[in-house]
Amino acid sequence: MSSVYAVGIGPGDISMMTGEARRALEKSDVIVGYKVYIDLIRDLCVGKELIESGMRRERERCRKCVELAKAGKTVALVCSGDAGVYGMASPLLEIAYEEGFDDVVIVPGVTAALSGSAVLGAPLGHDFCVISLSDLLTPWEVIEKRLKSAAQGDFCIAIYNPSSHKRADYLKRACDIMLTILPPDRPCGYVRNIGRDEMSYRTCTLSELADEDVDMFTTVFIGNSSTRIVNGRLITPRGYDQK
Amino acid sequence: MSSVYAVGIGPGDISMMTGEARRALEKSDVIVGYKVYIDLIRDLCVGKELIESGMRRERERCRKCVELAKAGKTVALVCSGDAGVYGMASPLLEIAYEEGFDDVVIVPGVTAALSGSAVLGAPLGHDFCVISLSDLLTPWEVIEKRLKSAAQGDFCIAIYNPSSHKRADYLKRACDIMLTILPPDRPCGYVRNIGRDEMSYRTCTLSELADEDVDMFTTVFIGNSSTRIVNGRLITPRGYDQK
Repeated sequence: MSSVYAVGIGPGDISMMTGEARRALEKSDVIVGYKVYIDLIRDLCVGKELIESGMRRERERCRKCVELAKAGKTVALVCSGDAGVYGMASPLLEIAYEEGFDDVVIVPGVTAALSGSAVLGAPLGHDFCVISLSDLLTPWEVIEKRLKSAAQGDFCIAIYNPSSHKRADYLKRACDIMLTILPPDRPCGYVRNIGRDEMSYRTCTLSELADEDVDMFTTVFIGNSSTRIVNGRLITPRGYDQK
Repeated sequence: MSSVYAVGIGPGDISMMTGEARRALEKSDVIVGYKVYIDLIRDLCVGKELIESGMRRERERCRKCVELAKAGKTVALVCSGDAGVYGMASPLLEIAYEEGFDDVVIVPGVTAALSGSAVLGAPLGHDFCVISLSDLLTPWEVIEKRLKSAAQGDFCIAIYNPSSHKRADYLKRACDIMLTILPPDRPCGYVRNIGRDEMSYRTCTLSELADEDVDMFTTVFIGNSSTRIVNGRLITPRGYDQK
């Protein structure tokens, strides 16, 4: 039996991958993943067996990985960003347990909250929450409760999956919920296509954010009560200036 | 004028650094940082000017970086984990603005929430919060409010700085607050010395966590209402099994 690695490849550009992630890909006989993610690392896949898929059917993909490893192949299951944050680590570990398979290694990576934050400046310089607006696997009531709790707790907030074709107004809905608690001029920002050629970003206020046109490749940031926009960058102080 | 890079070096082992972080160190003439962090990357510092410091005095350290860059040196300011998450990105950008200096580049890295999560399994498989228990720069009332909000929002929670010599009982205090909202058998875990030789980890319940002996090099994880301990690993489902 060989290992299955769940590999967080970071936001896109290979330079943002860790050495450990690169090594896991090198060691693998088979690389499994969503085609869009494999496209990002194709230079590292030369001579490997590739199993590329569309989205969904994640459990089947995990089962296939375990099956291959039981047959002696070392397998890398690639995830965009981190392997754990909305990634494949959790379904893979569950399926592996069901199949009596033990040799799963989780390789972390730079998730969009961190890579997007670096582009904007330092919006996550203090306690923060990460919330996905996708209601594919989470009831909207739970998402709404989390948005309110995050605002009430004065957290910095990173929002994943702010929009999609079917959910075009979700970011506006989320902003409207938060505007019941937070002021309209709360500093915000967003980054599109992090770590890719067409990357773009913008800072704005929470009330402006509600009407911004974002897509599923955008990560959104909402500041806490200390966050400021300074010289076009979004900065949440750690508090040193008070000392 | 040259650049100042705020570089997130990841949890400890050089293999967990990104290629971009490594390249920023290579490009730099001067490497500035807390001695404990520079020790982790000393192999990459050969031939560089090193400015090693104790903790605190972060603003002075940032000002020194800007001064060196203005004099033509390329500077890397190293941060453990990510550059933004409780890191130097935020004070560095503030000081740079005060000094009229523009060329600051933030290089993200794998923060302990992600690297610790990978060791335990997948505790951060759904929406999560990151909270520091250090009240050096944050009033305890704010920390308490955030702990409550995170528990009320049913977030997975990663806790940084759970203890220190002066704050030996802080994790117990935090657990006691959360036990007013969360059940005593809520699955939890912690990892000590992530990415270093003496790494250790454990899963436990929230009531057990309150009495665990943790130190400042420990990252603590508290599950959400779906988190389970399976085969010794802490797993928060994404929900695929309901589909």
